[in-house]
Amino acid sequence: MLDGLFRPRAVGVIGASGNPYSIGHIVVKNLTHYGFVGPVFPINPKGGTIRSIQAYKSILDVPCDTIDLVNISIRNVYVPAVLEECGQKGVKFAIVHSAGFKEVGPEGLELERKMVETAHKHGIRIFGPNSQGIQNADPEVSVYANFTFVPQKPGNISIIAQGGGMGEMLKLHLHNVGLGHRMYCSYGNECDLTMPEILEYYGQDEGTRVIMMQTESFKDPRAFLEVAAKITPHKPILAIKAGRTAEGSKAVSSHTGALVDQVKMAEAMYRKAGVVAFTDTHQMIKAAIAMSTKNPPPGNRIGMITNTGGPGIQAVDEAIGQGLVLAEWSEKGTRKLAETQFAEASLGNPVDVVATANQDHYHAAISTLLAEEDTDMVLVFFVTAPFTDIDAIAVRIKEATAESDKPVVVVVETYSENYRLIENLRAADLPVYEFPEDGVRALAAMTRYAGLRDRVREDIPELKVEKAKAEAIIKSYRGQDSYLTQEDAFAVLSSYGIRSPRMAGFTSARGLEGAADIVGFPCVLKIDSADVVHKSDAGGVVLNIGDMDELQGAYDGMVDSFGAGASCLLMEQAPKGRELIAGVAASEGLGSLVMFGLGGIFVEVMKDVAAAVAPLSTPEADELVQAIQGYAVLSGTRGQESVDLPALSEMLVRVSLLARDFPEIVEMDLNPIFAYPKGRAPVAVDVRLRVA
Amino acid sequence: MLDGLFRPRAVGVIGASGNPYSIGHIVVKNLTHYGFVGPVFPINPKGGTIRSIQAYKSILDVPCDTIDLVNISIRNVYVPAVLEECGQKGVKFAIVHSAGFKEVGPEGLELERKMVETAHKHGIRIFGPNSQGIQNADPEVSVYANFTFVPQKPGNISIIAQGGGMGEMLKLHLHNVGLGHRMYCSYGNECDLTMPEILEYYGQDEGTRVIMMQTESFKDPRAFLEVAAKITPHKPILAIKAGRTAEGSKAVSSHTGALVDQVKMAEAMYRKAGVVAFTDTHQMIKAAIAMSTKNPPPGNRIGMITNTGGPGIQAVDEAIGQGLVLAEWSEKGTRKLAETQFAEASLGNPVDVVATANQDHYHAAISTLLAEEDTDMVLVFFVTAPFTDIDAIAVRIKEATAESDKPVVVVVETYSENYRLIENLRAADLPVYEFPEDGVRALAAMTRYAGLRDRVREDIPELKVEKAKAEAIIKSYRGQDSYLTQEDAFAVLSSYGIRSPRMAGFTSARGLEGAADIVGFPCVLKIDSADVVHKSDAGGVVLNIGDMDELQGAYDGMVDSFGAGASCLLMEQAPKGRELIAGVAASEGLGSLVMFGLGGIFVEVMKDVAAAVAPLSTPEADELVQAIQGYAVLSGTRGQESVDLPALSEMLVRVSLLARDFPEIVEMDLNPIFAYPKGRAPVAVDVRLRVA
Repeated sequence: MLDGLFRPRAVGVIGASGNPYSIGHIVVKNLTHYGFVGPVFPINPKGGTIRSIQAYKSILDVPCDTIDLVNISIRNVYVPAVLEECGQKGVKFAIVHSAGFKEVGPEGLELERKMVETAHKHGIRIFGPNSQGIQNADPEVSVYANFTFVPQKPGNISIIAQGGGMGEMLKLHLHNVGLGHRMYCSYGNECDLTMPEILEYYGQDEGTRVIMMQTESFKDPRAFLEVAAKITPHKPILAIKAGRTAEGSKAVSSHTGALVDQVKMAEAMYRKAGVVAFTDTHQMIKAAIAMSTKNPPPGNRIGMITNTGGPGIQAVDEAIGQGLVLAEWSEKGTRKLAETQFAEASLGNPVDVVATANQDHYHAAISTLLAEEDTDMVLVFFVTAPFTDIDAIAVRIKEATAESDKPVVVVVETYSENYRLIENLRAADLPVYEFPEDGVRALAAMTRYAGLRDRVREDIPELKVEKAKAEAIIKSYRGQDSYLTQEDAFAVLSSYGIRSPRMAGFTSARGLEGAADIVGFPCVLKIDSADVVHKSDAGGVVLNIGDMDELQGAYDGMVDSFGAGASCLLMEQAPKGRELIAGVAASEGLGSLVMFGLGGIFVEVMKDVAAAVAPLSTPEADELVQAIQGYAVLSGTRGQESVDLPALSEMLVRVSLLARDFPEIVEMDLNPIFAYPKGRAPVAVDVRLRVA
Repeated sequence: MLDGLFRPRAVGVIGASGNPYSIGHIVVKNLTHYGFVGPVFPINPKGGTIRSIQAYKSILDVPCDTIDLVNISIRNVYVPAVLEECGQKGVKFAIVHSAGFKEVGPEGLELERKMVETAHKHGIRIFGPNSQGIQNADPEVSVYANFTFVPQKPGNISIIAQGGGMGEMLKLHLHNVGLGHRMYCSYGNECDLTMPEILEYYGQDEGTRVIMMQTESFKDPRAFLEVAAKITPHKPILAIKAGRTAEGSKAVSSHTGALVDQVKMAEAMYRKAGVVAFTDTHQMIKAAIAMSTKNPPPGNRIGMITNTGGPGIQAVDEAIGQGLVLAEWSEKGTRKLAETQFAEASLGNPVDVVATANQDHYHAAISTLLAEEDTDMVLVFFVTAPFTDIDAIAVRIKEATAESDKPVVVVVETYSENYRLIENLRAADLPVYEFPEDGVRALAAMTRYAGLRDRVREDIPELKVEKAKAEAIIKSYRGQDSYLTQEDAFAVLSSYGIRSPRMAGFTSARGLEGAADIVGFPCVLKIDSADVVHKSDAGGVVLNIGDMDELQGAYDGMVDSFGAGASCLLMEQAPKGRELIAGVAASEGLGSLVMFGLGGIFVEVMKDVAAAVAPLSTPEADELVQAIQGYAVLSGTRGQESVDLPALSEMLVRVSLLARDFPEIVEMDLNPIFAYPKGRAPVAVDVRLRVA
């Protein structure tokens, strides 16, 4: 429980000073200015008075036994000693603003270790160091234990950010559009109290309706995944991962000192946990605002109302681009629109009530659309035309939307003289935007959340696998960090029910005929040596062998290149199918990722590869297949023949079970896999498998 | 010259009334409130006084002979009669606000025709009808002949929009961020005065630095193209085309009555004319703001400065996503940064001056980056940290940027109490944004403009073609709206130097052997009948014919299916290359479009096809090839073998010459084309060609 941090009874500010530019001073100011309900105790070795409050020389002098939280902004080297005193005083949480720890190198890391050790001795949890602090705008506590400048006002969106600048930006935009927030924190070095612990607390907080998060690097991905997955079924988490390009990732490293490429990992975790991912800060905030007002729509069908044509078209283009569908009105709905709107109104979707529409036209149009069974959400566009009673229209928009649970966003085109309208609408819990595209994107994000929240959840299927057989093979490679031979790798696949062509290994001319009997023609001859990783390039693969003579010739060639005793593998030449790739990549702190993509140009040039966290349930495997841009190529839409998608998903589940059961598989590539039309399971034609 | 419209000496308002919600009243109010420099004459059949100005019963009664412009908002049927009087009075331009013309059907169209006829009899040009009107904020005239509500303030961005709501939105956002505009118009039905005429006028206006436009449908695409192409070398045009999805296009139809799918056409025209295309309204406006302050950057290398890490990373990710490159500092630059910044500052790109940076740190960092030869533009991020003198920082940012011609954008993270900083920076002609992504996108748009402006321009190459030979073939199909036979279509291609495999046509068993002698093996046998358009589906194509026996068998099959006298074509089986498609599509009012894309799933599933306006210069053909998403597949980046790109461009130029010379080619598909590595020209393996 983090109540001592986010709902402290009293706060001590260690390092408070009279200098108005000092962190300690600003924290005292923020705590008092925003009306923290408990007492604030400035601590300064010189004593004195800080912002009209008596300061104490040591926390031990403070005549109060309920100081749950201290803010510390003194020099790094003094922190452990001060924590000793805090421990004696019964403090539960310490926010360490001070920098000069892990981020500055080994010496700082050692100081950080010592600080945590001291704290834990006394049961104190450390937030930070090198951190901004926390806020809780809940009027019952109103704690602003943070040195930033954005005014605090209660709201129902909570924010957790690794970077202070980004956290501040999220908070700030809410403030700039007249909204508040619930809890806020920017956690810095995360030396003790972790992001997942805080996220879990937000998840349990009844006053938090939406969580926005920004992350630069995941310290404990598995913990994040588990916590987030518990929250998203009842509360949306919206997330931005910094460093999605190689250059951005490098900037993360230089910012946090973490050397990680966590882009695919974050993508996979977000999908598995049902987190709504964003790349654009402003879009995320706008979506959070919409989600903080209403539950997400039951489906993806949008209805629109406008009093001017052009912005309606922009909204339509954006909606289609975002995967929404234009709702169609029932006969009854159309009749009601015809009865209530001007003759020159356009009654399709968008409904163009025309610029002269008055409050009753708007009310009737909104009520009608919200009552339509096949309309899941409504966008209302409203330009404040000078020949209408715009205040009356705003009132009636509020009335019409109050009647329904379906989400509604309002786009108001107006200027400062009419900003009262926007404030009025926002006060009625209506999200208001400046551009039609923004309104559509916010609704589309709600729809994405609903899709994640309501997706089918199934247990990991317990498919029949021969784990002992795989174990026997893998065991012999363990600790060598090397590639398995082809024969062994295929045998591992086979033990997990991952199909491959018929094959037979042999090491001398004597084995040739027997192998051919097993495999048949046409077939493929491959050199099978862990030393020859890029077999094709080395001349170690001969395709299209049609008969025994050709096979003999091909084998003679191999002997010439690789010597007489070289291990070879003879494989049935699988009929060409749709080329796919799948793979496994170990992901530190998380387990393994399963990768999937279209093969050939798609993976090499288009980099169209998706990742998922192993193990996969069947619906998760389906999602992974659907996550690539080229999914339409597989699904049989747009004139292509579909591949056997259930069989493909099953193969990916089996790959994921293998990855789960053998975390020592640090790298596995099935490339290519041939997928075939319905009724025929996909086949892995080539494999590379490395065991650590 | 449109001076009479945008710089009238006097304005008459026909339909002015005392009703404050009437268009005529609002126009009088806007003209007078924003200080039109000439006299305004309200015209009302009842006379009287309107907004303290004497009204006249007829324009003929007005004691002024310099009424260049009238605004008309009376009932549609009275407009022609009033124009008669305007003609007698010497009026030059009439803005018709009234609706009830073309957009309501045949009767309205007839009224529109009559109105234009009356106007032209007197040399009057009509703006509209069904239009908002025009504005010119140039203080020398200050004319607000428009019934909308956005306050007018001088600026250097001019706006031309088909839809009033969208035009208003563009103008409004400029106002809401404290900026003004130059000229503005929303032109409605475009019955007489056309969009390209107005665009041309904006192009010639010295006070206009940037043009923003929104279009729903192009009435005269060719005229637009020619005008825009003349403007963009010296002034950026930023454009949004409404209706980029099928659903959006339908919404355009229901809004304007035009039944068109002009998406590809607009894309092609924008590229040819050097217009910077947008799909997002807000992004376009933000880019226009940046372009209105400075010339575009000389290259694509961005330098960044921030005082907090996270937003810097967001900016890096966005920059890379937008195709910008992170600048690297010279040794001298790095040294200067080291000398001027805090020890804990990060001196890479972004330069993180850290939150405690003061005005001098900012000044030094900006000056250093702007002086760097390899830095083309600079983004400055500035969170108003509470322990710094933020006003002093703003002043020094202004000073540092004033010294350079390179574009700079500033992203300020702050709240209402500090909005003076933003106003100060904007007053110094610095574009200021709220989010780092916005600043990056604005710079990226400037870079796109520079790329378009500075691209290599060449004449259409006069390649050797045998026009007469093509003419002789096409002539025999003209007026029949039918497909050419394969043999004829390939002959047309050949006459324009577009390669295809060796081939020979024949119509009876007797011709079989002769054809085989010409073509050789392996070969392909095709039925060649205009009636069989989908030859493969009908069993009219046999591939991989290896010898004379197989050919005889294939031919016997054709005879069974299509009769003994069926025309056949025997073609060399071209070696498989990279599959491409090219095509021609007639585009009304513009000429022909040349389409290009990767074949197979790329075109069928991914719809990755680009278009260009015929004819093409060589650089334009290169651009067309580069415009598809799959360009990397052709260019040899990322491990693929490059195709012969110059040969491919030449083929596209030849296709475009054919399209130019024979506008009666309404449809042509070369699908597939096989492209090969360098040294081997691409070959069109199949063709469909329809002549109207």
